[in-house]
Amino acid sequence: METDTIAAISTPVGEGGIAVIRVSGPESISLVDRIFKGKHPLVEAATHTVHYGHIVHPVSDGDPIDEVLVTVMKKPRTFTREDVVEISCHGGMISVQSVLEVLLEVGIRLAEPGEFTKRAFLNGRIDLSQAEAVIDLIRSKTDRAAQLAMRQAEGRLSRLVQRLRRDILETLAHLAVNVDYPEYDAEELTAKRLRERCDEVEREVNSLLATARQGRIYREGIATVIVGRPNVGKSSLLNALAHENKAIVTDIPGTTRDVIEEYVNVRGIPLRLVDTAGIRETEDVVEKIGVERSHQALEEADLVLLLLNYAESLSDDDRRLLREVAPHTAIIVVNKTDLPPRLDLEEVRSLVRETPMVTTSIKEETGLDQLEQAIADLFLEGRTQSQDLTYVSNTRHIQLLKETLRHIQEAKAGLDAGVPLDMVEIDMKNAWQSLGEIIGDAVAEDLIDQIFSQFCLGK
Amino acid sequence: METDTIAAISTPVGEGGIAVIRVSGPESISLVDRIFKGKHPLVEAATHTVHYGHIVHPVSDGDPIDEVLVTVMKKPRTFTREDVVEISCHGGMISVQSVLEVLLEVGIRLAEPGEFTKRAFLNGRIDLSQAEAVIDLIRSKTDRAAQLAMRQAEGRLSRLVQRLRRDILETLAHLAVNVDYPEYDAEELTAKRLRERCDEVEREVNSLLATARQGRIYREGIATVIVGRPNVGKSSLLNALAHENKAIVTDIPGTTRDVIEEYVNVRGIPLRLVDTAGIRETEDVVEKIGVERSHQALEEADLVLLLLNYAESLSDDDRRLLREVAPHTAIIVVNKTDLPPRLDLEEVRSLVRETPMVTTSIKEETGLDQLEQAIADLFLEGRTQSQDLTYVSNTRHIQLLKETLRHIQEAKAGLDAGVPLDMVEIDMKNAWQSLGEIIGDAVAEDLIDQIFSQFCLGK
Repeated sequence: METDTIAAISTPVGEGGIAVIRVSGPESISLVDRIFKGKHPLVEAATHTVHYGHIVHPVSDGDPIDEVLVTVMKKPRTFTREDVVEISCHGGMISVQSVLEVLLEVGIRLAEPGEFTKRAFLNGRIDLSQAEAVIDLIRSKTDRAAQLAMRQAEGRLSRLVQRLRRDILETLAHLAVNVDYPEYDAEELTAKRLRERCDEVEREVNSLLATARQGRIYREGIATVIVGRPNVGKSSLLNALAHENKAIVTDIPGTTRDVIEEYVNVRGIPLRLVDTAGIRETEDVVEKIGVERSHQALEEADLVLLLLNYAESLSDDDRRLLREVAPHTAIIVVNKTDLPPRLDLEEVRSLVRETPMVTTSIKEETGLDQLEQAIADLFLEGRTQSQDLTYVSNTRHIQLLKETLRHIQEAKAGLDAGVPLDMVEIDMKNAWQSLGEIIGDAVAEDLIDQIFSQFCLGK
Repeated sequence: METDTIAAISTPVGEGGIAVIRVSGPESISLVDRIFKGKHPLVEAATHTVHYGHIVHPVSDGDPIDEVLVTVMKKPRTFTREDVVEISCHGGMISVQSVLEVLLEVGIRLAEPGEFTKRAFLNGRIDLSQAEAVIDLIRSKTDRAAQLAMRQAEGRLSRLVQRLRRDILETLAHLAVNVDYPEYDAEELTAKRLRERCDEVEREVNSLLATARQGRIYREGIATVIVGRPNVGKSSLLNALAHENKAIVTDIPGTTRDVIEEYVNVRGIPLRLVDTAGIRETEDVVEKIGVERSHQALEEADLVLLLLNYAESLSDDDRRLLREVAPHTAIIVVNKTDLPPRLDLEEVRSLVRETPMVTTSIKEETGLDQLEQAIADLFLEGRTQSQDLTYVSNTRHIQLLKETLRHIQEAKAGLDAGVPLDMVEIDMKNAWQSLGEIIGDAVAEDLIDQIFSQFCLGK
């Protein structure tokens, strides 16, 4: 178990009113005390109290580095179940950095990404699926995604998994009795009960897996590409979607401008607009992206929006694009219906028989509703969004649920084939084990490290 | 006086471990209580205590919106001198937005930019120059800038201004006695004393104004442009400066990518690198920026770094650039000294007689120290940085100090010309008034609104 004291800036980088540094570990209160000048020392403070003061250099008696509010929270009622100190500084980039530097000077270690949450997990406050939900919550792009992550963080998935494991364990206990004392009960009766229990677990795991596609859409967004000839309205469509649906621009600090992603929220579904930077660039680049877009970009997209010009007849470029998008999940957007019609819709239909088509005039703001409905139809599959379902969205969880399913199905096949019950027992144990890995039971240390390293700093 | 309850997200937008919403006003505790589910109601909480719980919808009894820590701080020991509640949510963009939305639903008003600090000012906790320092602290790009802003926030400038005002006021009181009862003292003696006092104030205001150029450099950074022919090493120089000096990329959320600014910290001086996006673009754009850079870009720069290639003879483009930068504050950087020399340094010298020149090999990492020293020489004027000086950096303050100076000089001129003392009194009163505006004494309401509107949201 790690027992040193760690610190990190827990708020995003940028200009803001407040920046928070989180400190956790056995010496957090006494070490912060060495650079804090307030009315009373922090070591005298009661737990869960806030103190006004200044952060100063530990040695020199110079200028204060920042005016702060320091919150003292003693274990075990803290995020990490260790003593935690939170320092609320003036916002901006420099003063919070300076405060962090003096914290490191007095011997506190810079936390690794996710290390606070990792400690919460290692100290038993949350399980692994709850910890993973914390990342999802931070990264969520729509209300719906945040809500699903929050449920998982609250332990909904954990409780469901724990119940399934308990069921399997009870069955195993029952089985053990029979394997050890075959005379105690009729073996046939046991096999029947086992079979029932397997069916039950299979049904539950299946219905959980059925939420996976939806869950992943909410969690990761739909990678969406807008294609079309120059001047067909790609940039206007992008702006219209962004404007109507409150665009979220994600800029990952420290990297180049090219990684900026734009999300728009269409009826709760996060569309991740790919290559929007390109679309917003000069006309030259639009040309390139519109017509010479590589196959790869289309391959990687979950959704292609192909724009056609209602007021012009089909060009060879249009035909090429139509043929290219035909095998993909796509929507044909016939734009500029405010102008006199020239487009041969019959021909378009003949090229893409299965692809949904909507007509819009982005200029006159008509047809956007239909486009959004078409997107919802494609990805929500006409279902009303269940408020109650426990969704599974994490790739690791989906993988483990599929493994569970395989073990259960092997157990069932074994029962059908009449193999000895202690063989079936192994399959059941494996299923129990796979479920356990979802909540972090008996998970290898390097996997834990890998999971937490995906966190942002300061969490 | 405003007395409603306001709220805003006080941490920067982006992915982070923690996001904080600040609430201030007479009903902050009772209104937050309506959406907070914890062990105890917040209205029962002692001041400066922290409480774990969940934010839920005020009406529906549905899912919790977020798991939070809520800090209750009762007036008057708060940032605004009103009751303040700070809600610490999970980071990310969505959950904090959702929490803010339910706060607005229960009748809390969204704060305007700077409104918390404005309340701190209106309620007398800080004066105007301290409030302005809070913005500077948030926006500061180097340690030194943050340190100077922190001093001003702590009231250094305020105390100096208050002392000057007290001095003037005492003189005015003395003068009033003489103007009302001229027989009471010899008028000549009064004029002499007055003259002394004016000299004293003039000296102090002048020495404060002498820090203004430095102060503004620390505060706003030096707008720096890198020019040169293609492939001379502009991009490498940019990267070398950024790498050695921990670049800070500022992205103002909600705007296009074009406003990204890059700062590098050269010996405490923040260089604001202009058009770096251009330099990092395709070769085509480099060409444009290198050779066809408009006069305007050079006009607006505080510093031009002109790169020449040591391994090639001067081209006509080089000559044009040299002639263009000659009238500007510039440094000639002769790069690629790792290659055989071809450049006629004599000719370069003849074109830019006064401009400092350094030689570098960015590839071999030589000469960068000299370049940084040349920058420091230009902008720190060889002075060692005084640790003790009170710097003035805000344009408004500089303007008001210049006004003060003018009034004082008019008073002196009047004394020299032997005008009646009640005429001199008016000048002295004006000087006192100008100084007062620095700390927000008798400042018009619309000016106050304008100053605080420059703040970021949530401060």
